[in-house]
Amino acid sequence: MGKYCFGIDVGGTSIKCGLFDTKGLLIEKWEIPTDTSESGKNVIPDFCKSILTKLEEKNISKDDVSGIGVGVPGAVDKNGVVAMAVNLHWGKTDVTGEVTRLTGIKSYAGNDANVAALGEAWMGAAKGCDNTIMVTLGTGVGGGIIVNGKILTGAHGAGGEIGHAHISDAFEVACNCGNKGCLEQIASATGIVNTGKRYIANYKKDSVLKHIENLTAKDVLDAFKAKDELAVEIMDYVGENLGKALANFAVVADPEVIVIGGGVSKAGKPLFELIAKYYNKYAFSLCKNIEIVGASLGNDAGIYGAAKMTI
Amino acid sequence: MGKYCFGIDVGGTSIKCGLFDTKGLLIEKWEIPTDTSESGKNVIPDFCKSILTKLEEKNISKDDVSGIGVGVPGAVDKNGVVAMAVNLHWGKTDVTGEVTRLTGIKSYAGNDANVAALGEAWMGAAKGCDNTIMVTLGTGVGGGIIVNGKILTGAHGAGGEIGHAHISDAFEVACNCGNKGCLEQIASATGIVNTGKRYIANYKKDSVLKHIENLTAKDVLDAFKAKDELAVEIMDYVGENLGKALANFAVVADPEVIVIGGGVSKAGKPLFELIAKYYNKYAFSLCKNIEIVGASLGNDAGIYGAAKMTI
Repeated sequence: MGKYCFGIDVGGTSIKCGLFDTKGLLIEKWEIPTDTSESGKNVIPDFCKSILTKLEEKNISKDDVSGIGVGVPGAVDKNGVVAMAVNLHWGKTDVTGEVTRLTGIKSYAGNDANVAALGEAWMGAAKGCDNTIMVTLGTGVGGGIIVNGKILTGAHGAGGEIGHAHISDAFEVACNCGNKGCLEQIASATGIVNTGKRYIANYKKDSVLKHIENLTAKDVLDAFKAKDELAVEIMDYVGENLGKALANFAVVADPEVIVIGGGVSKAGKPLFELIAKYYNKYAFSLCKNIEIVGASLGNDAGIYGAAKMTI
Repeated sequence: MGKYCFGIDVGGTSIKCGLFDTKGLLIEKWEIPTDTSESGKNVIPDFCKSILTKLEEKNISKDDVSGIGVGVPGAVDKNGVVAMAVNLHWGKTDVTGEVTRLTGIKSYAGNDANVAALGEAWMGAAKGCDNTIMVTLGTGVGGGIIVNGKILTGAHGAGGEIGHAHISDAFEVACNCGNKGCLEQIASATGIVNTGKRYIANYKKDSVLKHIENLTAKDVLDAFKAKDELAVEIMDYVGENLGKALANFAVVADPEVIVIGGGVSKAGKPLFELIAKYYNKYAFSLCKNIEIVGASLGNDAGIYGAAKMTI
């Protein structure tokens, strides 16, 4: 096994790159822009070139590199093939095949949310834990399940797609996935705004939220932390549904820790305590009282996890 | 690796034992009674003695045995230790430690429902599948999750305890686990009877079920297969809740196949079709239209899965 590895996190705007040693030390990180023109055909060549340049610059031999790990925004099958990645304008793409062909270095690929979970389990909030559930509360809800230190990819690359668990029969509007009542429709930033608007419309008393024109999830979360009564009601609905969903994921995967990431997680401790309250209400006895913590690697979780795939 | 292995399935009444070759051929199976006297202290010595006798009888050297796998009715941690097994009158028991001490052969232990799932994934209904969810609909609801050909044990041995997922907010009676609204309260044989009684009490028209004194799950399932209108309504409620729950487990574990076992599964194809209908209604796009099939190893699933743990 080599002494070094690369972790690449491909996003729709930029590609984050990290050079690590195989013990988990981040030696250097940098970013290059994502060129999505011509069906994103330059994406893989661009970061491969950047890796080869870095090797030359650092005078590192390819023999000393254990591999290149790549996180991509799409479902990745066990052969490293992506069926489609909308944000990169990709159709079916053999990620690992192309990376290895262009660099001569062994390659691994995973879904970006799964890879971020692996990063947190390797060097972040779940460091030292073999079994972890990570949920990422951003514009959507992503997730990653780590079992015995490895990503649960599943048969179709849909392992950990927990944002699309069915949570509520009360939704008439469809989720981006086409179903109705997904966790994403409640616990994402978008879900919090939509829930917020519904609660505001029916709220008789005054609240800071009634005086905001273009409501954001941050507005709701700030008001929640300031103990605004309406915001507390909104987040109670979100927290109960999220806690209940996590309890149901826990009887499948039985984690040591649940990691909460994404923009919404910036609300911090009051949010984690709320989720934990409802998680413990619904969780199976053996799964109760595990740690529910915030992600700690921020935007670097992806490069850490991608690098870990190579080891 | 040896040519032979043993699979032991410890139940409250009898201990099923199997001698296998490591390719999955069941060479011989037999049963011995479970002696639960004196806090079940004879259980492990009894089957160890039986194994040693079998080795002598067959003239097999211990060097040719890859191991002894043991399925027990309780949560087993990754070290092979059971915290408690009520049906065996066991407190904390180091299963693998004791088996290896008494036989001199490497040993593995797992929860019986998980082990049965592994058996079906090895040589049964999910043969050839790396990722499987098995749900056992009996007096209770058990489960087992197979990821990359191995049991998902989890951090507390609660991996696959899907009978205790929270499914309904409408339950006032508690489940055996202490929570309210578990899948087990709806989809077990007991759950079907309880649901049946509730529906019968509110049903205005006639039904065969109204003329049965001590209603059993089999009565409901037989009437369902005969297309009795009331029984169809009862099973529709059960099937929708079970299908929805399985869809939510699938976004965690993303299986190739879902195996339905236990006494209730004897209802066969009409039941599997009902479950599949609702599973596909609620499942995430990538997880839709997977096979939902009946278990095929019957009572032997446990010895098969226990043997597979050793390989």
